Amino acid sequence: MWGGRFGTGPDAAMREINASIGVDKRLWREDLAGSRAHVTMLGATGILDAGDVTAILAGLATIETEFAAGGLVEDPALEDIHMHVETRLAQLIGPAAGRLHTARSRNDQVATDFRLWVRGACAEADAGLKALVLALLDRAGEHAATIMPGFTHLQVAQPVTLGHHLMAYVEMLGRDRSRFADAATRMNLSPLGSAALAGTGFAIDRFATAAALGFAGPTRNSLDSVSDRDFALDYLSAAAMAGLHLSRLAEEIIIWASQPFGFVTLPDAWSTGSSIMPQKRNPDAAELVRAKAGALLGGFQTLAVIMKGLPLAYSKDMQDDKAVVFAAHDTLALCLTAMTGMMESLTFNADRMRAAAASGFSTATDLADWLVREAQVPFRQAHDITGRAVKAAEARGVTLDGLSDAELAAIDARITPAVRSVLSVDASVASRTSFGGTAPDNVRAAIAAARDML
Amino acid sequence: MWGGRFGTGPDAAMREINASIGVDKRLWREDLAGSRAHVTMLGATGILDAGDVTAILAGLATIETEFAAGGLVEDPALEDIHMHVETRLAQLIGPAAGRLHTARSRNDQVATDFRLWVRGACAEADAGLKALVLALLDRAGEHAATIMPGFTHLQVAQPVTLGHHLMAYVEMLGRDRSRFADAATRMNLSPLGSAALAGTGFAIDRFATAAALGFAGPTRNSLDSVSDRDFALDYLSAAAMAGLHLSRLAEEIIIWASQPFGFVTLPDAWSTGSSIMPQKRNPDAAELVRAKAGALLGGFQTLAVIMKGLPLAYSKDMQDDKAVVFAAHDTLALCLTAMTGMMESLTFNADRMRAAAASGFSTATDLADWLVREAQVPFRQAHDITGRAVKAAEARGVTLDGLSDAELAAIDARITPAVRSVLSVDASVASRTSFGGTAPDNVRAAIAAARDML
Amino acid sequence: MWGGRFGTGPDAAMREINASIGVDKRLWREDLAGSRAHVTMLGATGILDAGDVTAILAGLATIETEFAAGGLVEDPALEDIHMHVETRLAQLIGPAAGRLHTARSRNDQVATDFRLWVRGACAEADAGLKALVLALLDRAGEHAATIMPGFTHLQVAQPVTLGHHLMAYVEMLGRDRSRFADAATRMNLSPLGSAALAGTGFAIDRFATAAALGFAGPTRNSLDSVSDRDFALDYLSAAAMAGLHLSRLAEEIIIWASQPFGFVTLPDAWSTGSSIMPQKRNPDAAELVRAKAGALLGGFQTLAVIMKGLPLAYSKDMQDDKAVVFAAHDTLALCLTAMTGMMESLTFNADRMRAAAASGFSTATDLADWLVREAQVPFRQAHDITGRAVKAAEARGVTLDGLSDAELAAIDARITPAVRSVLSVDASVASRTSFGGTAPDNVRAAIAAARDML
Amino acid sequence: MWGGRFGTGPDAAMREINASIGVDKRLWREDLAGSRAHVTMLGATGILDAGDVTAILAGLATIETEFAAGGLVEDPALEDIHMHVETRLAQLIGPAAGRLHTARSRNDQVATDFRLWVRGACAEADAGLKALVLALLDRAGEHAATIMPGFTHLQVAQPVTLGHHLMAYVEMLGRDRSRFADAATRMNLSPLGSAALAGTGFAIDRFATAAALGFAGPTRNSLDSVSDRDFALDYLSAAAMAGLHLSRLAEEIIIWASQPFGFVTLPDAWSTGSSIMPQKRNPDAAELVRAKAGALLGGFQTLAVIMKGLPLAYSKDMQDDKAVVFAAHDTLALCLTAMTGMMESLTFNADRMRAAAASGFSTATDLADWLVREAQVPFRQAHDITGRAVKAAEARGVTLDGLSDAELAAIDARITPAVRSVLSVDASVASRTSFGGTAPDNVRAAIAAARDML
Repeated sequence: MWGGRFGTGPDAAMREINASIGVDKRLWREDLAGSRAHVTMLGATGILDAGDVTAILAGLATIETEFAAGGLVEDPALEDIHMHVETRLAQLIGPAAGRLHTARSRNDQVATDFRLWVRGACAEADAGLKALVLALLDRAGEHAATIMPGFTHLQVAQPVTLGHHLMAYVEMLGRDRSRFADAATRMNLSPLGSAALAGTGFAIDRFATAAALGFAGPTRNSLDSVSDRDFALDYLSAAAMAGLHLSRLAEEIIIWASQPFGFVTLPDAWSTGSSIMPQKRNPDAAELVRAKAGALLGGFQTLAVIMKGLPLAYSKDMQDDKAVVFAAHDTLALCLTAMTGMMESLTFNADRMRAAAASGFSTATDLADWLVREAQVPFRQAHDITGRAVKAAEARGVTLDGLSDAELAAIDARITPAVRSVLSVDASVASRTSFGGTAPDNVRAAIAAARDML
Repeated sequence: MWGGRFGTGPDAAMREINASIGVDKRLWREDLAGSRAHVTMLGATGILDAGDVTAILAGLATIETEFAAGGLVEDPALEDIHMHVETRLAQLIGPAAGRLHTARSRNDQVATDFRLWVRGACAEADAGLKALVLALLDRAGEHAATIMPGFTHLQVAQPVTLGHHLMAYVEMLGRDRSRFADAATRMNLSPLGSAALAGTGFAIDRFATAAALGFAGPTRNSLDSVSDRDFALDYLSAAAMAGLHLSRLAEEIIIWASQPFGFVTLPDAWSTGSSIMPQKRNPDAAELVRAKAGALLGGFQTLAVIMKGLPLAYSKDMQDDKAVVFAAHDTLALCLTAMTGMMESLTFNADRMRAAAASGFSTATDLADWLVREAQVPFRQAHDITGRAVKAAEARGVTLDGLSDAELAAIDARITPAVRSVLSVDASVASRTSFGGTAPDNVRAAIAAARDML
Repeated sequence: MWGGRFGTGPDAAMREINASIGVDKRLWREDLAGSRAHVTMLGATGILDAGDVTAILAGLATIETEFAAGGLVEDPALEDIHMHVETRLAQLIGPAAGRLHTARSRNDQVATDFRLWVRGACAEADAGLKALVLALLDRAGEHAATIMPGFTHLQVAQPVTLGHHLMAYVEMLGRDRSRFADAATRMNLSPLGSAALAGTGFAIDRFATAAALGFAGPTRNSLDSVSDRDFALDYLSAAAMAGLHLSRLAEEIIIWASQPFGFVTLPDAWSTGSSIMPQKRNPDAAELVRAKAGALLGGFQTLAVIMKGLPLAYSKDMQDDKAVVFAAHDTLALCLTAMTGMMESLTFNADRMRAAAASGFSTATDLADWLVREAQVPFRQAHDITGRAVKAAEARGVTLDGLSDAELAAIDARITPAVRSVLSVDASVASRTSFGGTAPDNVRAAIAAARDML
Repeated sequence: MWGGRFGTGPDAAMREINASIGVDKRLWREDLAGSRAHVTMLGATGILDAGDVTAILAGLATIETEFAAGGLVEDPALEDIHMHVETRLAQLIGPAAGRLHTARSRNDQVATDFRLWVRGACAEADAGLKALVLALLDRAGEHAATIMPGFTHLQVAQPVTLGHHLMAYVEMLGRDRSRFADAATRMNLSPLGSAALAGTGFAIDRFATAAALGFAGPTRNSLDSVSDRDFALDYLSAAAMAGLHLSRLAEEIIIWASQPFGFVTLPDAWSTGSSIMPQKRNPDAAELVRAKAGALLGGFQTLAVIMKGLPLAYSKDMQDDKAVVFAAHDTLALCLTAMTGMMESLTFNADRMRAAAASGFSTATDLADWLVREAQVPFRQAHDITGRAVKAAEARGVTLDGLSDAELAAIDARITPAVRSVLSVDASVASRTSFGGTAPDNVRAAIAAARDML
């Protein structure tokens, strides 16, 4: 492939570090698509004659059939997917195969193939995220009015509804989808025709190849086109962010499944046992999702570090882009599938959640707000009065509404028995009707709005 | 502030680790803006009466004047910016100050303040990037036809124009600008009114406060609103990407300024000397930009790691978001200013560049392409023939057009003297007229198009 | 400082990005120590005459007194600590000050200063870790026999003692201490005398300066000496590891303090409240420790990325080493202080822990082991039998020893009433006497051994 | 394996995310060694009878033969290497196989297996580093007196010898070796016998198993033993540091191979060509080493992030430790092999190096030092005088010794013709005889000392 100048072949270790076929074979569909678009354009512009074009297209079609049927057989002498395709084409159609690479370099070829693949990966990520959103919407609908403790600092804060809690993840995943969409839009320009780095003197039509491959147009600068892996980094940072959200949800499932919480029970199909402790039912999938979010972060970091120091134009360092992205893709897909499976099948233990919500003086804010509303106490004072009520209840070992009317009045004369209407968790939750608040009707409206947007 | 329940104050070390005023004082303008919007809405909805609203607004105006004039004086007993403002307000207007916090928590307050700040930081980053783009366009315009070697693998590959090379960075920075724009759009929803985590029972109008603060609307889920730092991460990942591009440009300046290259000379104003070597003229600013890109990457990584493991809703871990973002902002701003200053003032040594472009057999591809075009040789064969020509020239110690007609014909009979028209660097560059290619006219058109888009 | 070759001074932005005095002023003690050692050696070797040496040493002593008394006053025209010292010296003693820099460059000077500082930081980290170890040993001693659930996958696994659990952190922190010790040993060579990069032609005595500064000897290669920041990276990776362990402990405190667990209560001095929820008592310090571990990881990553791409010898990128290390030092010190304070003062709720330990069939393994020991059942079979016993107890809603003798025998005839001796959490814990196991006597022995090692 | 409690098997996606056999099969040798040590100890302590021990050891021997011959055949129904071994053992020897897992859990089993593997990986890394050191020593020996420019800021600073430059890497790699040695020492304790997390009630002998496996002793805390992955992180951070040094060397090879430098030429066996540019000879292996250093950094980061948030004891997140470490091992081994191959075979172009060393006024420091020594000028003044000499030479377009005696005297009267003895690069280099300096004799002594230490 490197032509007449090289005297000896590569050292075995050189061959090993240099070969990418073990990784980039996943690009074979994209490589064939790119070659088809390129050769069709070479024909349309008269750079190749019709006979060559027909022969090459037929050869590419045969290769596609072969690879689809039997997979690609790796030949260690051929370092990458591009040489596998070109070599097979030469076997099939003879020297005309050598005309396919006219006005093209592997630099723009791989940039095109990989962009196509990453664009597809954005669509896949979107579909996986959407499936999880649908699972969350279903469970949120079931539990629009199920009471649970809302936590801050993992301390019981205020009662919320489980549906509302699950809808928080619908928001996060919605942002993740918008990140993949932004990335897909930004990357949707075709580098094909940028050649090695400088463009070409052949009168090619880059708009035609861009259109044939579904790109919005060609990239604008050939040096940038072969040196740019922003599209891969955009994908990886979107994947890292999605992983971060999945990790947070996984963290909650793990905590909620722990016996002291007991908020959820995972079914046997999503639990594992222990080789030594026969009673165990472990949330392994959630733990692995949480772990894999670390790998997704590491993936972005890895490629960013690789790219950070590179002068223009293409450097071989960039070859290691694909292993990182492929791993991130597989990891994200697996995490989304696992999380969707867990979310669809876990059992929420509403009684445990409700009992926990009633603990921890979770309606203290409601008492303070009641003082503001009903007794015109400035909030800061109301907060202070309520703090004393909590202290008194804590000392007595009761909840806030376990204090007698007299005890409450002794704390502040403005606390009348009418306050009891706001001290239950149901009353608290039902009152939170501000936009985005946790009241059951709000949750149902949010679910409906989210379904409309899908 | 924490009211009546606490018996003793914090330990000194607790106070130190907990205090954020040293960092979050930068949010004072945003905190005042948020409070203004909130209290105005509380008045409009009748939650507060007009007298209180007027008093609070007047107090906030006084505080704004004070802080703008004399800066904020940190009081170690007041842990954050919110308490500084509220305490000063109480000094100014008395107990009515205590009504400002009605239907609000520090959780939604800080989320609002910080979003406003980060939204502004996106605009600042955009302006800084634009300034650098303008500097690049100016220099690209000067050097639309200046010949330099295009490198791949840092090996001379093909001649390109310096203008084309600089325009590659215009593309990168354009993507950076679009990332900040995407981030700003995605974050442009108001969390104000989400209260601690559950929303509120007060009949607030979140659409009004959102509008008053220039948000497109309120966020949709109160739990998400107080737990979400995606907006900060979006900013940090955009900053990391911009840093990565600046690092690549810095790397080039450093290599180009090295004596063996000698492509650029930095003016005294952008050079430093040595305490021991009197002859030195070092590109410190470029090196520091390159280094600081590492810190920008580390910033994204830091906050992502912080957020990754957090259950809902707000956890104190999130407090460390601001130091990371502020540092990234300052670093990015400084890097952009420095790079713009260097780009505007460095001298490109066109002679050194041209001489380097002529070395390294940079027009070998032109010979191969000529064989394809003029002699209908399949590209792969043409590549092989050219490789042999390079080998012959290398052995003789001459460039490709240093080979005689006879020598060329001996390599392949199809190489005729007509080939000499493509072997010069000028001819090579001028021929690259494919869209996005390096030909001077292309560069000029790309500059014009970029100016139109600004 | 850069001498006679520069025509104009630096651009304002250049000055800003280049200045390090705001950061490196923390090195003033080390800079004075290094200069003292250097000038003393210059005198001893006859490179400087005694009068100059005496004058310089006197000047340095004055500077030390001044800085210790009034701090260093930053002069923006003097970019770093070295110029501040040298300039002040010149003011104090005149032109002789100019002889101090003989046979020295800022490159070896800063490498020496910073190594001295980092060596001290290793010692400080060790002291902070030791203080936390002592607090853990005290609490482990109190709770050598306190029963708590041991978790795997955050599921109740087997009963353990709280003392044993705390001793796990003693092991982790012990490894952390050994990491700082390894780092301190590896870095303990003096770069002073490496000059700019090549060594010097003056007949200096690097062994003397090394000895004067407490180094084991001089570094062996001048190019490496000025280009090497391994010592800073070793410190940062040790700090990141320590942070990781502190984060794990913080995570446990946060979970344990959550109401559903209720294993620990933090005192007021280590709790914070809420601006809106009067009942809150939040473990902010633990959360912040957990967050700051993310920053420590980011610190290592940042400097590693900075160094990764640098050719030899010194590059200005390295200047950004100090901000990262200083921040890591301050963060680690604060985290250790806070964690020690929490550990010394938090209350362990033994009743809650014991109750949780008895749940979740935590002694199932004991039943399986009993079958192996008493009935010669192969472990795999015993595990299976026990699994069925757990299933039966779960169905009945009882613990394992809530099953009747008949019910147990019905599961497997080899289970006799004698099994009851192993089904209590106390029996389980007391039986784990294998080396490193959780039995209270083991814990006491481990504490004693750890105290001996300190 | 999980016994009698589970009603249904895992979901397909659960099986996929949970299975580790695809990764942990690499531990088969260690798993067999651990089991052998364990069962031998169970026999010696009388926990198992001799017949069972003999049968199990025979079975394990058969499995070793089988795996060594034909590899391990993955059975998707068996999730990990431990179950593959145990299941095969049961096929070979029947129910007695079930006794092997007495007093052991997979938690301590995998911790032991993996430690053994990582300990071996430390030894492998050491051997690979040593091979590269030997290559460097050979080349440094050849070029102990070869002159090249020493750079700071990639600007020509002072002449150095190539041997000295290469020896800087010997220092770095020596530190890397000490890091792997420290890591191996710290990890060399046996977790076997910690069981699931609490130790065991069986009267096992952990000192015996530790000794059998070559550990210095058993770990001291069972909870720590199954939760600790410090040993993997120590390996990964050492690998990241080694990668960082390899990346720096790779960066230099890439820059040196670039035509404007031309300091080195890579042989065909370590070069690649281009599919489009027939003249190319690219340093792909060096670029890939540089890239892979990014992956090594990402590996440490990934596992650190995974571990950072985990409460005790074992969590399934830890399962993802092995993929990261195995990848790091393979990457590091490949990078070391490639770098050693390059270092052994590349050609140093001494003429180009010498010419570059003579440029850039590289002996300016020698002039300044001469003024200090011969004319007793304080260094700061000498620096300033020399700066003016450089400025004059630059203006005339000559090197320093291209200035006439009169021109030199005009700059400062104390510069006499005697100065010419220090202005040549050879004189400069030969003068740098301070310990660690670049003089050829120093280099030779350093090589000899390094060989002695190996």
